[in-house]
Order: sequence, then C-alpha cells, then structure tokens
Amino acid sequence: MSNQPEHPALLIPGPIEFDDAVLQSMSHFSQSHVGAPFVETFGETLSMLRELFQTTDSSSQPFVISGSGTLGWDLVAANLAEPGDEVLVLHTGYFADSFTDCFETYGVKATQLKAPIGSRPQLPEIEKALKEKKYKLLTVTHVDTSTGVLSELKALSELVRRVSPETLLIVDGVCSVGCEDIEFDKWQLDGVITASQKAIGCPAGLSISMYSSRAIETFKNRKTPPGSYFASFKNWLPIMQNYEAKKPSYFATPSPQLVHALHTSLTKILSKPLSERFAAHRAASQKIKKAVADLGLKQLALDPADQANGMTAIYLPEGVTVPGLLPNLMKKGVVFAGGLHKEIAPKYIRIGHMGVSVTDPKRTDIDRAIEALGVGLSEAGYKKP
Amino acid sequence: MSNQPEHPALLIPGPIEFDDAVLQSMSHFSQSHVGAPFVETFGETLSMLRELFQTTDSSSQPFVISGSGTLGWDLVAANLAEPGDEVLVLHTGYFADSFTDCFETYGVKATQLKAPIGSRPQLPEIEKALKEKKYKLLTVTHVDTSTGVLSELKALSELVRRVSPETLLIVDGVCSVGCEDIEFDKWQLDGVITASQKAIGCPAGLSISMYSSRAIETFKNRKTPPGSYFASFKNWLPIMQNYEAKKPSYFATPSPQLVHALHTSLTKILSKPLSERFAAHRAASQKIKKAVADLGLKQLALDPADQANGMTAIYLPEGVTVPGLLPNLMKKGVVFAGGLHKEIAPKYIRIGHMGVSVTDPKRTDIDRAIEALGVGLSEAGYKKP
Repeated sequence: MSNQPEHPALLIPGPIEFDDAVLQSMSHFSQSHVGAPFVETFGETLSMLRELFQTTDSSSQPFVISGSGTLGWDLVAANLAEPGDEVLVLHTGYFADSFTDCFETYGVKATQLKAPIGSRPQLPEIEKALKEKKYKLLTVTHVDTSTGVLSELKALSELVRRVSPETLLIVDGVCSVGCEDIEFDKWQLDGVITASQKAIGCPAGLSISMYSSRAIETFKNRKTPPGSYFASFKNWLPIMQNYEAKKPSYFATPSPQLVHALHTSLTKILSKPLSERFAAHRAASQKIKKAVADLGLKQLALDPADQANGMTAIYLPEGVTVPGLLPNLMKKGVVFAGGLHKEIAPKYIRIGHMGVSVTDPKRTDIDRAIEALGVGLSEAGYKKP
Repeated sequence: MSNQPEHPALLIPGPIEFDDAVLQSMSHFSQSHVGAPFVETFGETLSMLRELFQTTDSSSQPFVISGSGTLGWDLVAANLAEPGDEVLVLHTGYFADSFTDCFETYGVKATQLKAPIGSRPQLPEIEKALKEKKYKLLTVTHVDTSTGVLSELKALSELVRRVSPETLLIVDGVCSVGCEDIEFDKWQLDGVITASQKAIGCPAGLSISMYSSRAIETFKNRKTPPGSYFASFKNWLPIMQNYEAKKPSYFATPSPQLVHALHTSLTKILSKPLSERFAAHRAASQKIKKAVADLGLKQLALDPADQANGMTAIYLPEGVTVPGLLPNLMKKGVVFAGGLHKEIAPKYIRIGHMGVSVTDPKRTDIDRAIEALGVGLSEAGYKKP
C-alpha cells in the first residue's frame, strides 16, 4: 500500500500522514535556489496555491516562506498593522492567545472577543464589537486546533463588509486550508495564513499565506516600516512576484526540497475538483463523529455547525486519562494528540483526519482509528452507557 | 557512486550537494513533533550541535528553528539588542548591509566598519572604533558568501575582550560552520548563527545557532520585550531546553523531516575528528585556488590569509561574461554561482566547495569543477597569459 516503513498512523491535527510521492520529493537532489529548474518549480507552486485558495484575482498575493505556521502571525502583525493600531481577535481557544501575543510584540493593540470553550463568538456580539471601535483587522481562527471548533467565514465576511468595510478580515487557516472550503475571492478574505503539514499534506517547514490586493495596498500605505525583518513583506513581496514570473531573485534561501514536496502535494490535490476533497473530509469527519457519539462521548464543539471537518476534539470519560489511553492506542497503530487548551488540557484528546488518511481509498486509517478508540477505552475500563 | 538521479554537481556557496543518507532522511515517515521518538531525535541533534561548535559549556544554548539563515539575524537583533542600542557591524560585503537593515528594523543603531571589496576591516581600525563608542554587540561575517573573504575570529575576540569586554561578539557563520574551524568556547564567542544548507550538509529550511551564557544573560536582562514573536528567545528558549532534556513541548511545529536530515548529517560529520574535516576543506580549497592562479585569474580576496576554505570568488577575465560562461559550465556538469556583491556582481563568479563534494573520496566534483572551468573559459575565447 505504501513504500514507507511500517509505523503507527499519525492521526493528530498535524503533522499528518504524507503521500509516498510527497515524501519522495523531500529527497530531491540538490538544486540552486536561483537556477531555472527550481525557479520554475517554485513559480508553479505559487500559481497552484491560487487554485487551492480559489482566487483568480491576479492581484492576490501568495507567499511561501521557510518557517512554521506561527510565522504567519508575524507576517500579519508586522506588515498589515502598525504600532498603535487596534485589532479584534475572535477567540476560540489556544491560538487566539498566541496571535494576541504576536500582535502585542509589534505594538498592535489586540482586543479579544471570547467564547466559552467549544463555542465561537456569535455574529451579534461581533457586530456590537465592530460598532464600538474601529478595527484595522479582524482575525478569526478558521479551525481552532486546540478545540476542533470551526468558524463560519462567509457570514462573518458579510458582517464585516456591512458594519466595518475598511476592516481587513484575516483568517488563521493553519488547520483548515486543504480540508475546509475557503473561497478567497468570493468571501472577500484579505489574508489567510497556513502551514504545510496539515491538510495541505506536505511536511512541516513552510509558512504559506495568501493576501488580497486590499491587504497588499494596506501594506504599501504603511506610515512606519514593517516591524520584522525575516517576516517583512518589503523583503518577500518582490521575491514571490519574481518566482511566479519565473525570474530568479534572492532575499533568503528557500528550501528546494520542501517546495518540491509542496509542488507534488498541490499537484495531487488539484488533480481532482476541490469540492470532492472537501466532501471526502466531511464524510470521514461524520464517520468519526458518529462513532464518538455511539461510544457515548462528547466533543468539545457541541453544535454540529461548529465542528471542524479535519479534526475532532473529544472529552475523555471519567477515569480515563490521556497518559493512560494514548500510549496504548499507539501500540494499536494509531497516534492521537492530547489536549492543548490550557484550561482543560488533561481532560480531552484530539484526532486529526486530514489528507491521504481521508482521501486515499487504499488507506484504512479512519476505520483503524475508530476501532482502536473503542478497544482502547474499553481496556481503560470505560463502559459505554 | 550515489543513489541520486544524474544531475549537474551543485558547486555554489550553498545549497551544496547532499549525502544520499541525508536526502533519504528527508523522506522520513511522518512523526508527531511532540512524540517520544522525534523528541529523542531532536534532543540528540541539539547535543550534536554543541560538538560541531566545539562547546562543552553546558550553559551555551543551541537553537534549531524552521526558517532560513536570514532568520538568525532576527534572532540576534530582536533578542540580544534593544531599541536604541549601538552595534558595530564589520563589513566585508553584501551580508553586512542586510544585517544592518535587520538591526535597524528592530530600532538598533548599526555602525558599519567597511573594508574595500575583497578585504576585511583590520584590527587597528576595529580597536579605534571600539574605543570611540560603547557597542552592545560587534558582528562579523566569518565567511562573506558574496566575496569569499574569511575573517579571523580568534584575534578579533582577543581584541574585543581587551578593549571592550562587555561587547558581545556575534558571528555570521552561515558560510563557515562545518567547513571552517570555530572554537566557540575557546574563542569566547557569544553567538554564531548559521543555516543548514551549506557546510553542515542538510537541505535548506533550518536556522541553526549557538549562544553563550553571556548572550543568554543579556537576553534575560532586557528592559524591553523581544522585538519579534517568531524569532523570540522568550518563546524558543524553553522549547530548545525541553527538547534537549527529551521532554515534549510546543511553541511552533518543527520540521521532523529536516531535523532527521540534520541528525543524519551531524552524525556523519562527527564520526571523524573535526580537524580532519577542516583539513579536507583547506586542501580542496588550495587545489581550486591554485588552479585559478594557474589560469591567470584573480580572486576577490587578494590576501591568502583572507581566503575562505569553503568557497572561491573569482574575477572573470576581460570579455567573458557570467551569462556567457555559467550555462556552458552547467552543460559540462557543474553549477557555479554568479556574483552577488552589488557593486561588481556581473564581473565575477563564485564556486562553492563544501561538504560531500570535498569529503567524500568517491566524488570527483572538485576535479570536474577545475576541468570545466578551464575548458569553459577557453571556449569563451579566453587564453591564459
């Protein structure tokens, strides 16, 4: 089934299991970062990202930079906001706190709109907040990896456009790009940041993002220089534009191997309609969520409309612990993640169901995950009600 | 000889040719970034870096972060200096200008001490500069990739300790770590930043650095918070310490594949005495530099004491152009780089001779490079004097 050595299926909310061909591309022989063959590969990769984000607006701008998903926050905070600017951070878990820290590092004033754990800020509250103060940016975690809560982008965008049209809508899509529908142009998004190792299906090491022409204009109209050097649009914008135009240029050395792997992964993803990909993720997610309910377990995200399609966060039943359950499941061949939300971390686990584990019909990861979860809980003494 | 598909030998000053086993590690199956097996690998990798930098002081601190070599400048500028601090930048080419830009991004006042192209600032001038003003940091590009100029660290460190002992000595070792002798403890260095894709022999995508206890104390005694989020010691220091102690922890997802490749490369490097490795680089470098002289060509770095051992920058003879020569050499199976120093870029080429191209006795890259250079110049109409 796979050329990879036998190993437990990695079913955490990223990194995920990778396709053989993607891993093979990781060991590509060495190429010059400014030579024609690699420039061609990088340029094609950037163009394919436009398709993944469903943008045909030629003034949208993709970025691929060596780094982790976290670097995306610096890209936003250091380029699209200026010291003293106000931003509204919709809070659904761990990552809104970190994004807030990042804004504050660059002197940007972040106001959090918090929701109870497992929920998300509601449109009327957001409307009220947007009317009370003028925000340069509004940020939303599309799928909060710490809680499995999915936010609704389309209605949020309509609200922002109606109530505060100058506010840029920034999406943390680290755990959503590639498994959740994102229509960058149609939903008038201004920035979506993500990383390679989740539903995009390429090993970790790349910060990937897309910005609207409005966002790029906002950057160009800054009164102060960007607050970061490595994460500066000033340094990267010409580089990304040159690579996509198949012209060599240099600011910092990209990783040819990671870019080859991303190229391979995007080629596979785009070989089928995106709608099929999202439907496959929804179907696998429903299968897991039904199994969780059948076991009598509760998800963190209560409302089905708020439940992510690429991951599931599940409260452990009384008496079952993370360190008791997960190592036993690993012996059964599946790796799940523990909790991450600091208030309740020891009380829940997280299952990732993204990429080839979901889309490759030859893989049995999802069925094995469901089977292992049931047996593992039973062995931990849990009896379903 | 190699399991890699046939391709021209990449002999630019990074990325370099990689060992088969290193490239194989790049396609490692997916692992959790917080699972015991990967934590073990990452921890060992950090410990091996101590050996590479020749530090046995347990309070030295290695960092490995997804990013490019450029990120190292942000690590220094955003953590070891504060807004308003004065730093002295020794200028030997392109990279001192960029490092200066980076300092200025974070509000740090950088003074450049410039040398003519192909030379480096001399100790008496540096002494004079250090006596005129108190500098928080002094930075030096160990090997300037734009000119092939090697700086002398030991005498520089002695000077700094004597004249301005509070000044931290920061080394940009992107093009030197792994091919030039660096004795971190003995030479009392405070920071050395580098990247994976040059003499360390691991594909691009990792910022690698080492700091002294003095540097870490300087960070801890800051009056202002670090100027960057992604490059913040506050965020990374506990993570690096935890990984090395084999404890899982999380700030941003590292790249397991790149870290595996780095682990493989460091294991190979450290399987022999470092002195042998540096001697092999010196020998290959001498061979190339002799061939260059025999062809009647001039290096940018005139004084042999200023010539790097991992690369050679060579003025093209009258009538031979970079776009005329390099594509022809690529057809002969070797890839060299064009010039990078903005004042003279079209007038010279750069040859990288680092890593397996130098240390693997089965490879003939160096001889092929010399042969191709001679034939290529001849075909371009050059007659040696």
